[in-house]
Amino acid sequence: MRLLVTGGAGYVGSVCATVLIERGHEVVVVDDLSTGNADAVPEGAQFVEGDIGELAASVLGDGSAGPRFDGVLHFAAQSLVGESVLEPEKYWRGNVVTTLSLLEAIRVSGTPRLVFSSTAATYGEPESSPITESDPTRPTNPYGATKLAIDHAITSYSQAYGLAATSLRYFNVAGAYRGAGENRVVETHLIPLVLQVALGQREKISVFGTDWPTPDGTAVRDYIHVLDLAEAHLLALEKASAGTHTIYNLGSGAGFSVREVIEACRRVTGLPIEAADAPRRAGDPAVLVASSERAIAELGWRPAHTDLDEIVADAWTFLQALGDRSHAAHRD
Amino acid sequence: MRLLVTGGAGYVGSVCATVLIERGHEVVVVDDLSTGNADAVPEGAQFVEGDIGELAASVLGDGSAGPRFDGVLHFAAQSLVGESVLEPEKYWRGNVVTTLSLLEAIRVSGTPRLVFSSTAATYGEPESSPITESDPTRPTNPYGATKLAIDHAITSYSQAYGLAATSLRYFNVAGAYRGAGENRVVETHLIPLVLQVALGQREKISVFGTDWPTPDGTAVRDYIHVLDLAEAHLLALEKASAGTHTIYNLGSGAGFSVREVIEACRRVTGLPIEAADAPRRAGDPAVLVASSERAIAELGWRPAHTDLDEIVADAWTFLQALGDRSHAAHRD
Repeated sequence: MRLLVTGGAGYVGSVCATVLIERGHEVVVVDDLSTGNADAVPEGAQFVEGDIGELAASVLGDGSAGPRFDGVLHFAAQSLVGESVLEPEKYWRGNVVTTLSLLEAIRVSGTPRLVFSSTAATYGEPESSPITESDPTRPTNPYGATKLAIDHAITSYSQAYGLAATSLRYFNVAGAYRGAGENRVVETHLIPLVLQVALGQREKISVFGTDWPTPDGTAVRDYIHVLDLAEAHLLALEKASAGTHTIYNLGSGAGFSVREVIEACRRVTGLPIEAADAPRRAGDPAVLVASSERAIAELGWRPAHTDLDEIVADAWTFLQALGDRSHAAHRD
Repeated sequence: MRLLVTGGAGYVGSVCATVLIERGHEVVVVDDLSTGNADAVPEGAQFVEGDIGELAASVLGDGSAGPRFDGVLHFAAQSLVGESVLEPEKYWRGNVVTTLSLLEAIRVSGTPRLVFSSTAATYGEPESSPITESDPTRPTNPYGATKLAIDHAITSYSQAYGLAATSLRYFNVAGAYRGAGENRVVETHLIPLVLQVALGQREKISVFGTDWPTPDGTAVRDYIHVLDLAEAHLLALEKASAGTHTIYNLGSGAGFSVREVIEACRRVTGLPIEAADAPRRAGDPAVLVASSERAIAELGWRPAHTDLDEIVADAWTFLQALGDRSHAAHRD
């Protein structure tokens, strides 16, 4: 298939683009490099630098000679929860308005398939655990609200215009693959934060809340290896039906506590890693674990990398290699 | 207060503008007349014709000399449920993108208050009755989904930028006031449709579903007089607090069945009004009734025109007068 990957210079987008190319697909990456890194775009992908909201119509074309692409994988997004609270305008414009332009270009060009990166943040504070796709959606921050609005827009487009669409609601994506991993300027995800302590880039890791109703009192999250996530995207491209929009939660189904993650990082790195207990943060739920039963049943998806130490080890290998490359660059 | 009323040439917007002027407020109406009627803009209001998405920045100003308005009442919207299913692009652009431009202009200009016309359609098929504001939101059509996205955007803006915001979720608005009533080219609401049969503009009224689990087997809806709705807008303007976005359901709290509405129309008009039973329509819930407890408790709102015959009589007076004016126009 010939596929357009938006945000293909970012963490999840670049890993998925890598896997798509390995499986013989033709990939065009569009990324404005506002948070992505041109080095992460895999070899073999055509790279177009720019904002997908502005470029969608010209890249996808007017459909007069048929669609140029078999599908779009839409990763490009503003994705920092804290920033979204302080600067919602950036998220409503950058996520919703941008994606509406992309959807309109998909419609005009007759592009048949779309896979969208949605998020567990669309649910907000869960009523029960694990979270299923039919649970209420009550996002507690603008990031989750913009992703939910896009999910609803995709449903509209799919029903009206025949698009075969899938939204994949990621839980906590982690791990790395072949030189593509998670290393944002403003890092907010637990595993890279803990590993930054191991690397000496950060003094200690804060454990927000030690009195949650969980086995060890710290918050529990569902970590999914980015490679398992990439497999789900391939399956979604294959299985989606015209005029249908299906939403799938993607998690490993197992929850790990903050303390368990820190312990895994200590085991993998062999380093002590200082942790400090801190009060709960407002808006943090105690437990966020996905039911991925629908993806397993309908897509035939099987997460293969659910071992926490393996996830952490892949992230660690990536961050170490990045450090080495960065040192090498400084020497040049 | 000096108030901007978007969509003030439409049904609810023009009634609210009329009441605001009666209470001594200064009103500027912006309406692109795509579905509204310039004649409905009340005397005493300044009228600017155009799209609020395009005009918001220039009308509200850049705030350099302080805000020009004390508040915005945002009624302008695409609001036909059936059309939204067939042409979602028109609704995502026309409702969401337009409102995001308005929100940005509100932020830049420092306008302190916003009252937004939300809808019961944000809830979708209710899990229980009556519907409260904390019930899950699962819109079943793009119209409801776009209004929900706007509600979420307003929450974001209010929390980040200090806006005093209120969303009023209307149930079935009906009735008329001083020459402003409901008479759309494509009419989809029950009371005007039934009265169009009385006026001879329509042969009969279809009763969709006679086997619902309701007392007489026909669908039950919550009709609220447009004048009671206008009062809620005034109260929302007075009571809203900076940095807070509150959502209120607005209904009379009583449900009337389709057969009860038709009977009321027969009583009020003294005409037979032919009705024909028809199968249920997909997506129609059996019962949609609001709990307005929050508006009653927090706004001190009291719906005063809850008698169905009074609601129907006001709509009937309006439609008859409209017919007379139209005949007069044809004679000229």
